[in-house]
Amino acid sequence: LGQETDTTVRYNQYGARVNRTPLKAEERNGILVLESKDQKYKIWYDARVQVDGAMFFGDTYNPIGNGTSVRRARFAVKSQFTEKWYGEFDLDISNSELELKDAYLEFSPNERLSLRAGNYKEGFSFESTTTSRYLTFIERPNAVNTFAPSRHIGVGVMYHKDWLFGMGGIHFQTVGDPEERLFSEDNNKDYGTDEGVSFTGKLVAMPFHNDFNKGLHIGIAGSYRTPKTDAEIRGHERYSTRSLTSINRKKYMDTDLISNVDHIVLGGLEFAAYHKNFRFQGEYLMSNVHRKKWDEEMPTEKFDGWYAFGSVLLFGGKYNYNTNDAEFTQPTRGKSWGDVELAFRYDYLSLNSGMDQIMGGAGEGYTFGINYHVNNNVKIMLNYAYLNHDRYASGKNKLFVGYDENGALTKDPRKVVDANGKAGDDFSFVSVRFEVDF
Amino acid sequence: LGQETDTTVRYNQYGARVNRTPLKAEERNGILVLESKDQKYKIWYDARVQVDGAMFFGDTYNPIGNGTSVRRARFAVKSQFTEKWYGEFDLDISNSELELKDAYLEFSPNERLSLRAGNYKEGFSFESTTTSRYLTFIERPNAVNTFAPSRHIGVGVMYHKDWLFGMGGIHFQTVGDPEERLFSEDNNKDYGTDEGVSFTGKLVAMPFHNDFNKGLHIGIAGSYRTPKTDAEIRGHERYSTRSLTSINRKKYMDTDLISNVDHIVLGGLEFAAYHKNFRFQGEYLMSNVHRKKWDEEMPTEKFDGWYAFGSVLLFGGKYNYNTNDAEFTQPTRGKSWGDVELAFRYDYLSLNSGMDQIMGGAGEGYTFGINYHVNNNVKIMLNYAYLNHDRYASGKNKLFVGYDENGALTKDPRKVVDANGKAGDDFSFVSVRFEVDF
Amino acid sequence: LGQETDTTVRYNQYGARVNRTPLKAEERNGILVLESKDQKYKIWYDARVQVDGAMFFGDTYNPIGNGTSVRRARFAVKSQFTEKWYGEFDLDISNSELELKDAYLEFSPNERLSLRAGNYKEGFSFESTTTSRYLTFIERPNAVNTFAPSRHIGVGVMYHKDWLFGMGGIHFQTVGDPEERLFSEDNNKDYGTDEGVSFTGKLVAMPFHNDFNKGLHIGIAGSYRTPKTDAEIRGHERYSTRSLTSINRKKYMDTDLISNVDHIVLGGLEFAAYHKNFRFQGEYLMSNVHRKKWDEEMPTEKFDGWYAFGSVLLFGGKYNYNTNDAEFTQPTRGKSWGDVELAFRYDYLSLNSGMDQIMGGAGEGYTFGINYHVNNNVKIMLNYAYLNHDRYASGKNKLFVGYDENGALTKDPRKVVDANGKAGDDFSFVSVRFEVDF
Repeated sequence: LGQETDTTVRYNQYGARVNRTPLKAEERNGILVLESKDQKYKIWYDARVQVDGAMFFGDTYNPIGNGTSVRRARFAVKSQFTEKWYGEFDLDISNSELELKDAYLEFSPNERLSLRAGNYKEGFSFESTTTSRYLTFIERPNAVNTFAPSRHIGVGVMYHKDWLFGMGGIHFQTVGDPEERLFSEDNNKDYGTDEGVSFTGKLVAMPFHNDFNKGLHIGIAGSYRTPKTDAEIRGHERYSTRSLTSINRKKYMDTDLISNVDHIVLGGLEFAAYHKNFRFQGEYLMSNVHRKKWDEEMPTEKFDGWYAFGSVLLFGGKYNYNTNDAEFTQPTRGKSWGDVELAFRYDYLSLNSGMDQIMGGAGEGYTFGINYHVNNNVKIMLNYAYLNHDRYASGKNKLFVGYDENGALTKDPRKVVDANGKAGDDFSFVSVRFEVDF
Repeated sequence: LGQETDTTVRYNQYGARVNRTPLKAEERNGILVLESKDQKYKIWYDARVQVDGAMFFGDTYNPIGNGTSVRRARFAVKSQFTEKWYGEFDLDISNSELELKDAYLEFSPNERLSLRAGNYKEGFSFESTTTSRYLTFIERPNAVNTFAPSRHIGVGVMYHKDWLFGMGGIHFQTVGDPEERLFSEDNNKDYGTDEGVSFTGKLVAMPFHNDFNKGLHIGIAGSYRTPKTDAEIRGHERYSTRSLTSINRKKYMDTDLISNVDHIVLGGLEFAAYHKNFRFQGEYLMSNVHRKKWDEEMPTEKFDGWYAFGSVLLFGGKYNYNTNDAEFTQPTRGKSWGDVELAFRYDYLSLNSGMDQIMGGAGEGYTFGINYHVNNNVKIMLNYAYLNHDRYASGKNKLFVGYDENGALTKDPRKVVDANGKAGDDFSFVSVRFEVDF
Repeated sequence: LGQETDTTVRYNQYGARVNRTPLKAEERNGILVLESKDQKYKIWYDARVQVDGAMFFGDTYNPIGNGTSVRRARFAVKSQFTEKWYGEFDLDISNSELELKDAYLEFSPNERLSLRAGNYKEGFSFESTTTSRYLTFIERPNAVNTFAPSRHIGVGVMYHKDWLFGMGGIHFQTVGDPEERLFSEDNNKDYGTDEGVSFTGKLVAMPFHNDFNKGLHIGIAGSYRTPKTDAEIRGHERYSTRSLTSINRKKYMDTDLISNVDHIVLGGLEFAAYHKNFRFQGEYLMSNVHRKKWDEEMPTEKFDGWYAFGSVLLFGGKYNYNTNDAEFTQPTRGKSWGDVELAFRYDYLSLNSGMDQIMGGAGEGYTFGINYHVNNNVKIMLNYAYLNHDRYASGKNKLFVGYDENGALTKDPRKVVDANGKAGDDFSFVSVRFEVDF
């Protein structure tokens, strides 16, 4: 029988005995896992494809193109070895654009504590650290996309015990985008600039942590950040975002490059609750950009945003919350054919710091979602969203935001004479996602 | 015994029973496959490397460089789960240039019908949808490279029953090439242009479908295509191709950008036949580019091409045709050391639409091939080809195509005084490919 | 029992029997291996992440930026099939920059001889062909980085028997860097230039080859190289290197483009010795760039460099040398918690060819390293290095190299009035690497 274990002791060409541990191959909740009997060694693979399409509606000042996109195309290898060590390698090639995602080494002296080094997500924002595999809506809220730092090279620590979760780290540059990496390299080569550093941390209380059917998540997070070399110009920061869809490429809300940045302070509040098939989640995020011109203090630019959403599984499914990582994970489906989820979200982002300061625009979004959770591997998502931007959401004065007093379209917010609700581009869209994870 | 099945029931941290299905690992015809006993879950990997080299001969008007190339370096993950669902992820990094290839989700309610969403090959051209793994010649014919749309994001349906195969789909932009994707994104951002849409379909009759030793393939295909945003300039289309080799980078036949494109109609006829170790295959492809300037109709540009080839396995092998996909697949080898295949192909492409219209050049190729099918994983290919271009194959007037009346080399086809067979650059080459699939 | 072998004979849809060989999955020295019982079929995967950081010290003429980097993020698939054939596919996506690494096919008619075709490392320089997985210091010596050709497309042969190892090959362009590949393609398209060719070979004597505890490595290597099309300008060659770290992006030593290159001759001498936990290794490398202007000979530019290092494993570990490949491989650790290695290296590089010729700068480095070999998968490295550049190491006259007679900083080496040891930028740094291989 070929499959039986070959228990022969083997020696390599250097006379040393080869460590050999038989592994069992399993499909585990839809994923291939190879594991040793003592569960000390484990390796698994993760492929993910998300294909999106969107159609836009509304009588907009600026035309919007319908389109499609391979939003994510991911492949990852993850391995646990010798009980206490773990490694991960993760790439994205969506739309033929390469991004290195998670790439790190982790050491866990015990099951509550982990130390990590490499490229991974900073512990800031509940929705940002939730894997794209398990998002409730097709895109994260604008405030999260704008302020949450996501992946940066760094080292950090994670701890969880009973109702408490904490993580903190020292982070450096981002390498996710080849252009940002190029800026970093050039700033290093041409000016010898240090990369900049961020100190980021998060604390979460998780009442009802040992109840499978309900839970609360109450979190607070902060980050102190010096300017990074991955900015287009040293000492600058720029906040901008697409509006709840990757298909419409316009960035209505955009601060443009903010000069003379001394440091940035981020703050975040997180709240979530679930009970069986009901879930609620909300966050408030803010960024204070402290500026300095030589020895002269400049006014601090203050931006913020928030979102809240509720969702329900209709056919007997339930939500699952992972207390090790303080994150929601894949819900359990109620039927053999899957389950359907309804969700509604309101989100708001303001990049308007003050009338004499930076006015990058503000916008709110109303998003309604239906998700069909087919099985462990397949999810089909449908979103309808309405976006309402203010007159300052002019994409660095490149987009029309209303009519001036002569009745002509203008890109200058200060010349717009429309009433408050009317100025700024507003539109709605229907978007769809086909997702497969395997 | 480590390898024996661990039949313990496991519960995850959310109290839910973990679905665990043991998998068997197998080498199956040279490929690693992991499969559950009931064959409902299956995952496999596909790596492919093709290394090419070519030397050129002939007294050409324009010098040609000999060279080498990693023509393809592919890695794919493919998984079938819960009987009716299938996912695929496929990348190419040949010559360090990234391309997302197949990335899609497929649902098959029964074994005859499949629905697909994602990035995959449109159902047009027999030779285009044949995997590069099993090509008979090192490069596809020029007409196929020029007109067949290959992969685009879209949704579609496939059906096969007995002697009938059909597929149809709605397709959008291409994401294979980072530059094309950038054009799409910029066109969306700057002009709000819709991506454009294509309706593509194919019908194939397969007489002798249940005979392993012989078969016919008679197909007809069509596509209606509006201009895509992945073009360099919106509303433009460009047909161009390298001439039967990826090593010589010159594109002799090139229409340059065709402006004011309203829509394009593609048509294709496919014929193939095989009997044991003999195979014949041919296609005719045409493209009508319908143009419009404001309200004024412009003349339609008509391009076409065809090819035919025959091949034979010399040492007892036989050809195999997959009636599920209406495609040839890997042939069976006759000897334990493999098999040798001889093949000859004639192909023709005309991008000349008419003397007062677009004259992008025409060319014919004679290709002789010897393939050594070593085993399931290795194939070594040797091609000799002779290329005969006409005087209009001037690479957008960047290449010499003959002598003018003063005896000087000219890039202007209309000034060439050479006789018909002589004008235009002609050359021959020997190319070799080492291919490994595993 | 699901895991038991399904011995059913299966026939595919073409009526042919499917070759099916059961595979055993094993963790072998930390790596997943799937292998058939007769060991004729084997497939394994190789993921590698190296995360680096560095801080710089010293009162330098040019500021240096501290920073971090994902130095390598690799994924490879390797498979042996039918005993005599082997294939490999290897990619790197460190810092989101794609590079195709090994991609080749290998045929071994017997266990001593191998023939190879594809993209792989030329047989030149001991340290260059040593995998980055097992390097003793964080970066290879400057002379190796500068002169060793590393990977190029080509075909070659390898032979080993008892105390003898030899390899030789014909190589063409490099495809590791997308920019170099673009140069090659453009040179082909625009000028029809042949790619250029290299003949590279190496011979190694390995006394004590069948002793596990000690060994010698005495090697000689050479390469004859015509200019490649992957240069920025045809017929040019450029030698340049970063100085023992990838974080400081400045290239102090840089010849700039050397024009009118006829051919280059590389030479190398290799020596290594080990005894249990002691290891010594050194190399001398030189490059003669032969130049020609039309029919007129120009003076040959001569560059060279060398390094030597010693290392010791402190807690009972021992070094291992692979006589099949004439390379050191992973050392055996002495303790269950791993082992610690101390190492010291001196290296020197001179790109100064002569006062009336090319003066690209010279530099020496003193590197002290501590490596913690945790287990088969994890290595943590700490390096301290001191770099001493001469006044010609001015990065193509873009870096300050000393003070002129007016006491002002100058980038022109010929105007520097500082004493010999003082001119040129000198600095020290501490760098750290977290490495995980799985």
